[in-house]
Amino acid sequence: MSERPEIIHYFGAGPALLPNDVLKQAAADLINYQGTGLGLGELSHRSAPAIAVVDSAKESVKKLLDVPDSHEVCFLQSGGTGEFSALVYNLLAAHAKKTGKKGIANYLVTGSWSQKAAEEAKRLGADVNVAVNAKINGKYGTIPPPSEWSLSPPEQTAYVYYCDNETVNGVEFGYIPPVPEGVELVSDMSSNIMSRKVDVSKFGAIFAGVQKNIGIAGATVVIIKKSLLEKPADSELVALGIPLAPIVFDFATIAKNNSLYNTLPIFNVHIVSLTLARLLKNGGIPVQQVISGRKAEKLYMALDSATEGVYMLPVAKEVRSRMNIVFTIPGEGREKAFLEGAKKKGMTGLSGHRSVGGIRISSYNAVSEQSIDLLVDYINDFAKTI
Amino acid sequence: MSERPEIIHYFGAGPALLPNDVLKQAAADLINYQGTGLGLGELSHRSAPAIAVVDSAKESVKKLLDVPDSHEVCFLQSGGTGEFSALVYNLLAAHAKKTGKKGIANYLVTGSWSQKAAEEAKRLGADVNVAVNAKINGKYGTIPPPSEWSLSPPEQTAYVYYCDNETVNGVEFGYIPPVPEGVELVSDMSSNIMSRKVDVSKFGAIFAGVQKNIGIAGATVVIIKKSLLEKPADSELVALGIPLAPIVFDFATIAKNNSLYNTLPIFNVHIVSLTLARLLKNGGIPVQQVISGRKAEKLYMALDSATEGVYMLPVAKEVRSRMNIVFTIPGEGREKAFLEGAKKKGMTGLSGHRSVGGIRISSYNAVSEQSIDLLVDYINDFAKTI
Repeated sequence: MSERPEIIHYFGAGPALLPNDVLKQAAADLINYQGTGLGLGELSHRSAPAIAVVDSAKESVKKLLDVPDSHEVCFLQSGGTGEFSALVYNLLAAHAKKTGKKGIANYLVTGSWSQKAAEEAKRLGADVNVAVNAKINGKYGTIPPPSEWSLSPPEQTAYVYYCDNETVNGVEFGYIPPVPEGVELVSDMSSNIMSRKVDVSKFGAIFAGVQKNIGIAGATVVIIKKSLLEKPADSELVALGIPLAPIVFDFATIAKNNSLYNTLPIFNVHIVSLTLARLLKNGGIPVQQVISGRKAEKLYMALDSATEGVYMLPVAKEVRSRMNIVFTIPGEGREKAFLEGAKKKGMTGLSGHRSVGGIRISSYNAVSEQSIDLLVDYINDFAKTI
Repeated sequence: MSERPEIIHYFGAGPALLPNDVLKQAAADLINYQGTGLGLGELSHRSAPAIAVVDSAKESVKKLLDVPDSHEVCFLQSGGTGEFSALVYNLLAAHAKKTGKKGIANYLVTGSWSQKAAEEAKRLGADVNVAVNAKINGKYGTIPPPSEWSLSPPEQTAYVYYCDNETVNGVEFGYIPPVPEGVELVSDMSSNIMSRKVDVSKFGAIFAGVQKNIGIAGATVVIIKKSLLEKPADSELVALGIPLAPIVFDFATIAKNNSLYNTLPIFNVHIVSLTLARLLKNGGIPVQQVISGRKAEKLYMALDSATEGVYMLPVAKEVRSRMNIVFTIPGEGREKAFLEGAKKKGMTGLSGHRSVGGIRISSYNAVSEQSIDLLVDYINDFAKTI
């Protein structure tokens, strides 16, 4: 079997590091799954072992996040970007079922992912209200307080959408956005799911591409309030100017079929299942939340306490992401020197997103505290060379 | 590492058997890819190794099928069922670009998959013309000759859709459907791609979920004529009553970004790449086509030559599938006895689709000729016990 080091100092933003034991188990299961003589990728998605994989992944999501009975857990394909569209179709339809009207889609735009989601909603014909646009001088890095949000009137609101953690910009909500009673809240948690407690009952829908904290690319988890699976007839939706979901993005169809309406990539879901089982075994979210917080604290402390001006952190302190720690190093060639020095010490995946540059440390669940400690030492040492 | 027998006698309809060496390589690459120290599922989809995977899979598709420069190869998610919708959006848009009109979507319905595709097109608001409905007394098993098809007038035709091999019903086209000059032909080749030569130049689009002949579930290959990537402005499409594609199904966006607009499941594409590289090494399509034909011939000969009435083959001889050989065994308990006897000899995956019952032998590329020979012997022996 291929080997790899016990601890890998990799800080990529996603697809991202996964636990060694998860990958080793998955690799074995790709060849011969539970003594069936066949690999998991070769088994019918309707076979008993495949259904058990889906059920197990679902159960783990439910246990870890205390998902109430009011909500359903589904697995789909096409990642977070696919969900940008799926949510528009499904949430507008649910609102039309309740009110007979095409509601307004509200977006809290706090970074490039929520911006993309809002753009997609608009493109698909939703009536979009950008309730928050946190871009200042072309840059994201703050979240204005709720008192400054301009939400549409509650009765006209189909949903309020936000991105809980902006992977590119390093901006994370520290709280659940307060919305009026009865308004559906929708959240993209692709890059911080399973890193802290979430009160699922507060949400209409939560989704996450799995390739950051809980798997490899190819599966998407959607937690949806069951009452939102009801929708009017297609003809009524069309009459209201609400676009119809392609069948693979129709949450009602997916939920009714236990995520097996069409061929689900069971192997990819299995990696999620293994990762979540491991998390449960290690104490679940309460333990992970402490570790995630501590890792971020160590990094920010090192960056903040370096000689003034060495590291520039563009994100306001109260909304700094625990998952994606972004900064720049002013001075010609310094970022390059930082990255090269890190690489020499075995630390990689630290380049900022191509759209914003700089340095980005992604500290997902699988990134060990040892890796963070090594990086903290390096951050301190590098500052002294400036 | 997990072991498995050298030869596995598994005839499942998909997800289906894959070559041992492909799975072993993929399993190793999941843990440590090309000495990077990271598994392939952990690398950014925009990293050089990931892009190389996409490029390699694309190149292999092009080489194996002699894809002309007029066509582009893309990888997407959401499988064949996702493409049922994607084609509607993209092909109607392309037709509108050429003609300024919403064209008619023609469907040759020869089995349950093309039926589903036609239903989805209708649901999404396409003007659907079912040019062929081959269902007779509730069953599929024939393809009426082209002279009996009722295609819409060429200038009004957005596309003509057909399923080259109906996995459930065991019906396969033995020829490329003749359509008038300038009419775009679209084919679902999910279950027979890479089993025989295809003149790609004759097609507007070809797609295939990869989980039968060339991979595990999670990736879909689309071969699209480049000229069909041009489309009118969204506002014009809306005015014509043409639904807009969710961005992940917009072929122009996918093609422009080398299939990396959003996070592609690189590991799943890698398995396709490995399977295709192996096929190329073993002689490519010319060799595979001979093997596929011979395997099917052996099976049909055994079934046809058994004592009359033992095996009932519902599909007309001239459209019998080489990939999915379906039959029933009249007489109470006989199918069960057949399946149990097969299992005792190590042969599994032979149950018919849940919607039609009976027996189905899937003879995809990875099913060895030894497996077929063993099954042929068993078919002969079982008939003698009746």
